[in-house]
Amino acid sequence: MAIVLGANRYGKAETRLVRVVRDGQRHELRDLTVSVSLAGDLAATHLTGDNADVLPTDTQKNTVYAFAKKHGVASIEEFGLLLGRHFVDTQPAISWARVTLTEHPWERLGPYSFARHGGETRAAVVTVQDGQAWVVAGLDDLVLLNSTASEFHGFAVDEYTTLPPATDRVLATSVTARWRYAATGIDFDAAFSEVRGALVEAFVSTYSYSLQQTLYAMGQVALSERPEVAEIRLTLPNKHHFPVDLTPFGLDNPGEVFVATDRPYGLIEGTVLRDDAAAAPEAW
Amino acid sequence: MAIVLGANRYGKAETRLVRVVRDGQRHELRDLTVSVSLAGDLAATHLTGDNADVLPTDTQKNTVYAFAKKHGVASIEEFGLLLGRHFVDTQPAISWARVTLTEHPWERLGPYSFARHGGETRAAVVTVQDGQAWVVAGLDDLVLLNSTASEFHGFAVDEYTTLPPATDRVLATSVTARWRYAATGIDFDAAFSEVRGALVEAFVSTYSYSLQQTLYAMGQVALSERPEVAEIRLTLPNKHHFPVDLTPFGLDNPGEVFVATDRPYGLIEGTVLRDDAAAAPEAW
Amino acid sequence: MAIVLGANRYGKAETRLVRVVRDGQRHELRDLTVSVSLAGDLAATHLTGDNADVLPTDTQKNTVYAFAKKHGVASIEEFGLLLGRHFVDTQPAISWARVTLTEHPWERLGPYSFARHGGETRAAVVTVQDGQAWVVAGLDDLVLLNSTASEFHGFAVDEYTTLPPATDRVLATSVTARWRYAATGIDFDAAFSEVRGALVEAFVSTYSYSLQQTLYAMGQVALSERPEVAEIRLTLPNKHHFPVDLTPFGLDNPGEVFVATDRPYGLIEGTVLRDDAAAAPEAW
Amino acid sequence: MAIVLGANRYGKAETRLVRVVRDGQRHELRDLTVSVSLAGDLAATHLTGDNADVLPTDTQKNTVYAFAKKHGVASIEEFGLLLGRHFVDTQPAISWARVTLTEHPWERLGPYSFARHGGETRAAVVTVQDGQAWVVAGLDDLVLLNSTASEFHGFAVDEYTTLPPATDRVLATSVTARWRYAATGIDFDAAFSEVRGALVEAFVSTYSYSLQQTLYAMGQVALSERPEVAEIRLTLPNKHHFPVDLTPFGLDNPGEVFVATDRPYGLIEGTVLRDDAAAAPEAW
Repeated sequence: MAIVLGANRYGKAETRLVRVVRDGQRHELRDLTVSVSLAGDLAATHLTGDNADVLPTDTQKNTVYAFAKKHGVASIEEFGLLLGRHFVDTQPAISWARVTLTEHPWERLGPYSFARHGGETRAAVVTVQDGQAWVVAGLDDLVLLNSTASEFHGFAVDEYTTLPPATDRVLATSVTARWRYAATGIDFDAAFSEVRGALVEAFVSTYSYSLQQTLYAMGQVALSERPEVAEIRLTLPNKHHFPVDLTPFGLDNPGEVFVATDRPYGLIEGTVLRDDAAAAPEAW
Repeated sequence: MAIVLGANRYGKAETRLVRVVRDGQRHELRDLTVSVSLAGDLAATHLTGDNADVLPTDTQKNTVYAFAKKHGVASIEEFGLLLGRHFVDTQPAISWARVTLTEHPWERLGPYSFARHGGETRAAVVTVQDGQAWVVAGLDDLVLLNSTASEFHGFAVDEYTTLPPATDRVLATSVTARWRYAATGIDFDAAFSEVRGALVEAFVSTYSYSLQQTLYAMGQVALSERPEVAEIRLTLPNKHHFPVDLTPFGLDNPGEVFVATDRPYGLIEGTVLRDDAAAAPEAW
Repeated sequence: MAIVLGANRYGKAETRLVRVVRDGQRHELRDLTVSVSLAGDLAATHLTGDNADVLPTDTQKNTVYAFAKKHGVASIEEFGLLLGRHFVDTQPAISWARVTLTEHPWERLGPYSFARHGGETRAAVVTVQDGQAWVVAGLDDLVLLNSTASEFHGFAVDEYTTLPPATDRVLATSVTARWRYAATGIDFDAAFSEVRGALVEAFVSTYSYSLQQTLYAMGQVALSERPEVAEIRLTLPNKHHFPVDLTPFGLDNPGEVFVATDRPYGLIEGTVLRDDAAAAPEAW
Repeated sequence: MAIVLGANRYGKAETRLVRVVRDGQRHELRDLTVSVSLAGDLAATHLTGDNADVLPTDTQKNTVYAFAKKHGVASIEEFGLLLGRHFVDTQPAISWARVTLTEHPWERLGPYSFARHGGETRAAVVTVQDGQAWVVAGLDDLVLLNSTASEFHGFAVDEYTTLPPATDRVLATSVTARWRYAATGIDFDAAFSEVRGALVEAFVSTYSYSLQQTLYAMGQVALSERPEVAEIRLTLPNKHHFPVDLTPFGLDNPGEVFVATDRPYGLIEGTVLRDDAAAAPEAW
């Protein structure tokens, strides 16, 4: 028996990049957080501190900024592919790269003026290895709520069950979505916009008997609308809104006054995929 | 010399309230965080633990929910006035109440469907005392950016100054604003909307030589547009976007690639007011 | 009637400074976050963008680092006094300075090795004006809990009161304390340590009928132990630990199983002071 | 081609539990955050909203509290095993359970008085499936710093490299560790304490030429000291402390004044394992 080094990787996390494109007075803005992670033959630095194969994480940060100038940021997916391929192609010891990107959206107020649209962000995870590349797109912190059209009953009951059945409840969640494209040469901005729209539309239009049912509907609609999406993974916290018991005060409460709670929360996670999609564990 | 009790207050902080108004299938939603603080003759509980004059904070929370049902939430300012007056009017020992409210905005997606608009929130601080009431309204986390039309130079220089003058820089801030109304009987939703619009418009349209200049312009426009606003206090962190030095890579950077930094940050705070407005320290 | 500029100030917030003192192999470490705010005759920059009187916030940051080298960090209070006096003394337009400092504690693991003691931090607020200086010291996020020796009953009851009386409850809080020294030439490290100890001791040893009673006891003991403390302000959120109702499962719960909740929370704020202490509103 | 449901799971996340054990006046306290996730045959609720196989997440929360009373919390690992086995054993549709636990440490101040030790937390991840169980233990947010005994040079250089070599730097990290036990019937509290001690000791005593080298040393020592640990995974952000350039102010800076930065940061991740340890992907 010996103690050995297993899987490992390293990189620069959370490089903040704001890229302005100036077309006279009219500017475009993309606001990104970029994380790079590299793997390959990195045993020497772990075992002996020999760094000959270690491209500094500071260099990775510099590369993000230099590439933003040289190549621009067409989309976060394209920018991630450029960066990931660069590190694998140019560093002999590096055989795998993952670039994780978050885009912070801004609304236009004027030719060169913007307001940050807080909350929801767009995400991409790009993985490059052995001449291949995988692109996962997604979004975080999209908070949706239906104030009716949601029920929850007929559930399993055991000795610890006290929950009453609900025939009209608030359903709210903060969507985290990641979907994998079957290919890399697509219009990522358009695809993002359509998948996002499908997720929202399915949430709104599904009369729900469980958050799981809503999750599946969201995935099903997203895959229906964009054939290049091979699978989608959804993480849906159930942001509980409990009706307040107002009977001690002589008041009824027919779905009008709710307490929004932070913790604990239900957490529903699921994948929806095409049955003929080749699995791609490398992408995740 | 003796050790004595000084100013004191107590209450329930951060009660989360979601109020739904149902008009058939079409619902309205208001999402609030409400904090109550009360003061008066509370020496007994401090000195001896005699709680006869202490209305439990749990009761204050219950009151928020019961009032939301009984009275609805016309605006956070009106709701705060209702609550503040209630506590002062009904509790013999309580002579002062402050209700601090945050409203979390949602966008409508359908008759009963909503998406939370993250980031910016609306605020109100209502103070009731001696038959009087003061209303301060405001907003938090409104993040604005101009990618040009900002300079900073001609500043004071001492032996620790290394900053180069800037003739074209990014100007970005996260606005915290609080403005005091001279009266209480106004259309708070309309006033909020107009003051917010004035702040945004002034930020966008001011060619800026300092964030202080932008601050004053924002306040000046807000007061110009709404005569019932007596004063406005602005807190503007300078969210620095520094141009990245790309010359080591043979690249120039004419205002295109920026690093957005978290800390440290400039912090500009100022009040703009009418010179004939009576001071109202009680409101703050 | 005219619209005019009111109170204003500006500075660099949250400069992160780690100061190492090397005595051969044995090192000392002080880890600070420093915020500077300056005021004076700053109308020009607000009204016209003329920055001749504006020392850049970048310079303020540089000064923090240069002073850390030149003078060391004897205590955060002393360091704040040095900085505050420097700005007022050297900038003609500046007549007021406030330096707000947080110290992040580390435990020693070896001659040059440390583990950060998360959670609680030490604070100082130093104000310099007109040849005078005020020093407020304090701490944040000191979380204390008594699992018994706390009751709450005999409180005011109205139509919205449903809280049952408690004769044995958990009492927990996260202490924010700020105390003002009557003078500036004292051993700030020793005083901090003793006041902190007094606060903890009073929390532990007070049999409590209300968190207000505990607050007063904490302030009373702190002032008793350190005569140079003129007043202390305490902010004590009531971190509720509610006993879980286990009767549906055929179990009793005599103070054994609790749910710790985040929101809402009681919030108790109060000042304890010497009756012969001159008020010092400038210090806060 | 069809769209189908893939992997899925659900549960109650972040149930906050404080368990007091009373032995007369002397109390013991364990403060936990518990998340449960269950999987099995859950297609019906996703596809049709039929919840017959769905044990409510509310019931899972209740079970956490009831078990805390009935069985106590011997260790978070044992408590997780009890909970995980319960759900798999009693719910026909459930074949897999994961219980993720965080323990928030408190220091004793008196018989029934405690101060929360902020920052570092203890973790456990327990997985139950097919009559088997896997236990992963760990810790989060253990922040360690060596103010010397760290170098970084001899690294790969490309056209984007500007980092100068360092022969004496601050090395600081916030340790996230997860280690897998090869068995379930061990003294988890003792093992945790020893592995934690080994990680700290290795960080302190390793003269480091890269954070990777330190990572490997930490894992190597941990596995050497506890034979029941099969593998350990470490996530080490490089919390950069950059020396401040004081030369513009005529000052040198021989490792004394540092700026601690938040973002970006290096991120080093690696596994150290026994070469004869059977892989256990189910545990993670």
